Amino acid sequence: MGSFKGHALPGSFFLIAGLWWAGKYSLWYATLRNKSLGSTSTRLASRSTQRRLEVIEGSVTLFFSVVGMLAEQFVADGPRLHLYDYSEHHWDRLHNWQHSTMYLFFGLAGAMSLIVHTTDAAPLALDRLMLAIAFFIEGFLFLYHLHGRAMLDVHVHQLLLFCVFGEAMVSFLEVFHRGNMLLELLRASLTILQGSWFWQIGFVLYSPSGAEWDQKDHNNMMFITMCYCWHLVFSLLIVSVLYCTIIWSLWCTMRQGYPYRPSPL
Amino acid sequence: MGSFKGHALPGSFFLIAGLWWAGKYSLWYATLRNKSLGSTSTRLASRSTQRRLEVIEGSVTLFFSVVGMLAEQFVADGPRLHLYDYSEHHWDRLHNWQHSTMYLFFGLAGAMSLIVHTTDAAPLALDRLMLAIAFFIEGFLFLYHLHGRAMLDVHVHQLLLFCVFGEAMVSFLEVFHRGNMLLELLRASLTILQGSWFWQIGFVLYSPSGAEWDQKDHNNMMFITMCYCWHLVFSLLIVSVLYCTIIWSLWCTMRQGYPYRPSPL
Amino acid sequence: MGSFKGHALPGSFFLIAGLWWAGKYSLWYATLRNKSLGSTSTRLASRSTQRRLEVIEGSVTLFFSVVGMLAEQFVADGPRLHLYDYSEHHWDRLHNWQHSTMYLFFGLAGAMSLIVHTTDAAPLALDRLMLAIAFFIEGFLFLYHLHGRAMLDVHVHQLLLFCVFGEAMVSFLEVFHRGNMLLELLRASLTILQGSWFWQIGFVLYSPSGAEWDQKDHNNMMFITMCYCWHLVFSLLIVSVLYCTIIWSLWCTMRQGYPYRPSPL
Amino acid sequence: MGSFKGHALPGSFFLIAGLWWAGKYSLWYATLRNKSLGSTSTRLASRSTQRRLEVIEGSVTLFFSVVGMLAEQFVADGPRLHLYDYSEHHWDRLHNWQHSTMYLFFGLAGAMSLIVHTTDAAPLALDRLMLAIAFFIEGFLFLYHLHGRAMLDVHVHQLLLFCVFGEAMVSFLEVFHRGNMLLELLRASLTILQGSWFWQIGFVLYSPSGAEWDQKDHNNMMFITMCYCWHLVFSLLIVSVLYCTIIWSLWCTMRQGYPYRPSPL
Repeated sequence: MGSFKGHALPGSFFLIAGLWWAGKYSLWYATLRNKSLGSTSTRLASRSTQRRLEVIEGSVTLFFSVVGMLAEQFVADGPRLHLYDYSEHHWDRLHNWQHSTMYLFFGLAGAMSLIVHTTDAAPLALDRLMLAIAFFIEGFLFLYHLHGRAMLDVHVHQLLLFCVFGEAMVSFLEVFHRGNMLLELLRASLTILQGSWFWQIGFVLYSPSGAEWDQKDHNNMMFITMCYCWHLVFSLLIVSVLYCTIIWSLWCTMRQGYPYRPSPL
Repeated sequence: MGSFKGHALPGSFFLIAGLWWAGKYSLWYATLRNKSLGSTSTRLASRSTQRRLEVIEGSVTLFFSVVGMLAEQFVADGPRLHLYDYSEHHWDRLHNWQHSTMYLFFGLAGAMSLIVHTTDAAPLALDRLMLAIAFFIEGFLFLYHLHGRAMLDVHVHQLLLFCVFGEAMVSFLEVFHRGNMLLELLRASLTILQGSWFWQIGFVLYSPSGAEWDQKDHNNMMFITMCYCWHLVFSLLIVSVLYCTIIWSLWCTMRQGYPYRPSPL
Repeated sequence: MGSFKGHALPGSFFLIAGLWWAGKYSLWYATLRNKSLGSTSTRLASRSTQRRLEVIEGSVTLFFSVVGMLAEQFVADGPRLHLYDYSEHHWDRLHNWQHSTMYLFFGLAGAMSLIVHTTDAAPLALDRLMLAIAFFIEGFLFLYHLHGRAMLDVHVHQLLLFCVFGEAMVSFLEVFHRGNMLLELLRASLTILQGSWFWQIGFVLYSPSGAEWDQKDHNNMMFITMCYCWHLVFSLLIVSVLYCTIIWSLWCTMRQGYPYRPSPL
Repeated sequence: MGSFKGHALPGSFFLIAGLWWAGKYSLWYATLRNKSLGSTSTRLASRSTQRRLEVIEGSVTLFFSVVGMLAEQFVADGPRLHLYDYSEHHWDRLHNWQHSTMYLFFGLAGAMSLIVHTTDAAPLALDRLMLAIAFFIEGFLFLYHLHGRAMLDVHVHQLLLFCVFGEAMVSFLEVFHRGNMLLELLRASLTILQGSWFWQIGFVLYSPSGAEWDQKDHNNMMFITMCYCWHLVFSLLIVSVLYCTIIWSLWCTMRQGYPYRPSPL
C-alpha cells in the first residue's frame, strides 16, 4: 500500500470487526446467564436471533472483501487484473495482488460463515477454521513481504505478525473449544489491537504531519515495542468497558420487571 | 530428483491421495448423518464397508511405496542398492536414497493401516500416528535437503514444508480427535495443495517449455509466495465441490424412496 | 535497571510470589483430599476462605504493581512521566518506561483477579488468562530489550526468557485445565526460578563484590547455562519441601482428633 | 565426553530404558485387554504388580543416576567436585559437570517416581512431569553445548535434539493423557532412537576403527540425516516386534486353559 490511507483503511475495518465481536459475544454471554429471567433476554438469546446476527456478519464480511478486491485491482494505479507486464518482463504491481489475495481469504471465511449458518450442510466449527486460515494467510503473506526494507519498517510489521498469528491460533483453538467466551473476547481484543496498530504504522511510516522517524535509531525500535504493549492495554480496556456496559444495561432493562441479582456462575 | 517428471510423479500421487481422502471422508460424514434413513445409507455406513475401504487404501499405499522404492533404486541412473562408491570415496546418489527413505515411511504407514484395520492387535489411532511420522520425516528430509541451492529453489521447497509439517500436525491431532471431520478435510486439502505445489515446482524449476525463471529476482519470490496461497484456495475449492457433490448425490439417491430433509447437526 | 538493586528487587518479588503460590496450592490440595475429615480441614477448604485468599493476593499484586510503576517514574533519575525529551530530540529513559509497562500488566492481572473473585460478572479463568498475558508481555519486552549488549549479558537474559515464556504457557494451559495441581506447582517452581535467576543476573553483571566476569568467555556461558539448571533443581526442591511440610503439618493437626491415614488418590 | 566410550555408555542406558518401556507397556496393554480371561492375566494386571514394577524402575533409575554422577566426578580426569580452578582462573572440566547435571535430573525423575508409587502423597502424573523436565534439561544443555565445533559434529548433536525434545513433549502430553498406549510406545521408540543414535555419534566422531569422517563434506551431512531416519525405522520395528511377541506369548499361555480369540478393542 505504501501510504497513510492504505494502512488507515484496513485498520478501521479491523477496529470495527473487533468492536463488533466484543459486543456480540458480550451480549450472548449476558443473555446466556440470564436466560431464565424474562422476555427481553429470551428474545435476544434465541437461536434464531443469533443465527441472524451471524448471517449479517458473514454477508458484510463477504461484501467488503469483494469491494476490497475490486478496489485493489481497479484503483487509479491498480493492475486491472494484469498479472504480468509482457512488454517489460516483470510482475505487475504485486502488492495490489497480495492485498487482493488477503481479501480473498477473508471473503472465503465470510462466505463459509454464511453457508454454515444458513444451511445444515456442514459442521458449525468450519467458520472458525476458515477464519484461522484467513488470519494465517494474512500473516504468511506479511512474513515474506518485508525483504529489503528499513529496520523500523520491518519491525513494525513484525510486531503486527504477533497479533495476526495470535488470532489464527485462537481461532484454531475455537474449533475445539467453541463457545469459550475467553477465547472469543481474546480474539476481539487482538483484532482491535491489529486495527489500532495499522493506524500506528500509518502514523510512523507515512506520518500525515510530515515528520519523519529515524528508521535506524535503536531507541525508536524500543519505543515502538513498548507502544505495541500500550495498544494491547488499550484494546483490553475497550473490550472490558464494552463488556461491562452491555452486562449492566441488560441488567437495568430486566430489573424493571422484577428484583434481580446476577446469578453466580 | 532434479527433473520435471521427478516432481510431477509424486505430485500426481499426492493429488490422487487428497482427492480420495476428500471423497472418503465426505461420504462417511454424509452417511453418518443419514444413518437412520434407508438401505443405501446403511449399507455405505456399515462398519465392514468402511473397514474394507481402509484395507484397500492401506494396500494401495503399501504397493505404490514399494514400487516407488524399487523405481528409485533401479531406474537407469539409480544406485542399485549401492550406498558407498569405494572406488571414488563418496556416497552414491544420495538423492535417490533419500527418496527411497521417504517412500519407506509412507509404506510403513500403509502397512500399519492394513494391520490396524484387519486385526484387533493394536489401537486404531496407530494409523494416524504413523501417517504423522511419515509426513514429519518427509518434511525433515526436505529441511536438510536444500543446502547450497539457489534462492528461488530454496524458497519453493520451503513453502512445501508449510503444508508437509501442517499435515504432520493435523494427523497427530487426529490421534486425539479421531473422526473430527474438519481435521480430516483439512488434511485432504493440504495433501491436494502439496500435490499441486509439486507440479508448480516442476514448472518453475524445470519448465518443460524451456523458459527459465530468474532465481534471484525478489519479485519472483513474492509472486511464488502469493501463488502458493492461490493453490490453497484451489485445493479448498476442490474439496468443497467434492463434498457438496457427494452430499447432494446421496440426498438425491435416497429421496427417491421417501421425502427427506437434511437433519440439523 | 542496570544495577544490582534493580535486579534484586524484582527477584525478591518473584521469589515471594513463587513461595506464596507453592504454599497456597499445597494447602488447597491437602484440604481437598481430607475434606471429609474434620473441622480444621473443612474451614480451610471452604470456598469463602479460598476466595478471601485470592482477594488478598489480587490486592497485594495490584498494590505493589502501582507502587512499582510510581517508583520507576519518580525515583531520583526517573522520567517523571516525560516520554520525549524535546530539547535533545530523543526518547527519555525508555528502560524505566518499559519496566513501568511490565508492572502495568501485572497490575491488570491483579485487578482482574480481584474483580473475578469479588463479583460474578466474569468467568473465573479470566485471572489465569490475564496472568498469561502479563508473563507473555514481560518476555516480549525482554526479547527486544537486548540489542547491542555483550554476549554474556544477552545470554543470561535469554535464559530468563525460558522460564518467563514457560510461565505464560503454563498459565494459558490453566485456562483450560483449571485446578490441575501439577500445573499450579510448576508455575510456582518457575516463578521461584525466575526470582532466584534475577538475583543471579545481579551477581553476574553487577557483582556487589566488584569482581567482573569476562563477558566473552565461552566457558562462562557454559557454566551459566548449567547454573540455570541448578536454580531449577533448587526451586523444585523448595516447592517439594514446602508441599511436604504443609501436607505433614495438616496431617498432625488433624490426627489429634482421631486416627487418620492419608487416603489414596 | 569426547570419546567413543563416553557416547556408547549413555547410548546403552537409553537402549535398555527404551526396550524396558516397550516391554512394560506392551505387557500392560495386553493384560488390560484380557483382564477377564484367567489367573495369569489377572495376576500380571493387578495394581500391586504394576506398582512393584514402577518401584523397581524408579529405584534402578535413581541408582544408576547416582552412580553416573559419582563416576563423572571421580573418574581419572574428573573434577572431583572442584568447580573453579583458582590457580589458573578458569572453570574446571565443565563437560563433566554438565553430564552430572543431566544425571541429576534423571535421578530426580527416578526419585519422584519412587515417591509417587510408594506413597499417596502426590498425584501420579508427577512422574511424567519430572521425566519431561529431565528430557527438556538434557536437550537444553546440549543446545548450548555445541558452540564452536565442526559442522558435522554440530549436526549429529542437533539431530539428537529432535528425539530428546520429542520425548520431553510426549512425556508432557502424558501428564494430560496418562495411559494412552500410543504415547507410551512412541516414547519407548524415541528412547531407543536416542540410544542407538548415541552409538552412531560415537562411531562417526570417534570411530574405533580409526577411520575419520570429513567433517565439512555436505554429502556426509545428507547421509547422516538419512541415517537418522533409518535409526527411527529400526527403533519402530524393534518396538513392534517386542509388542507382537508379548501379545502372542501371553495369548499362547492363556489359550492352554480354554479357547480364546482376542477381543476387539
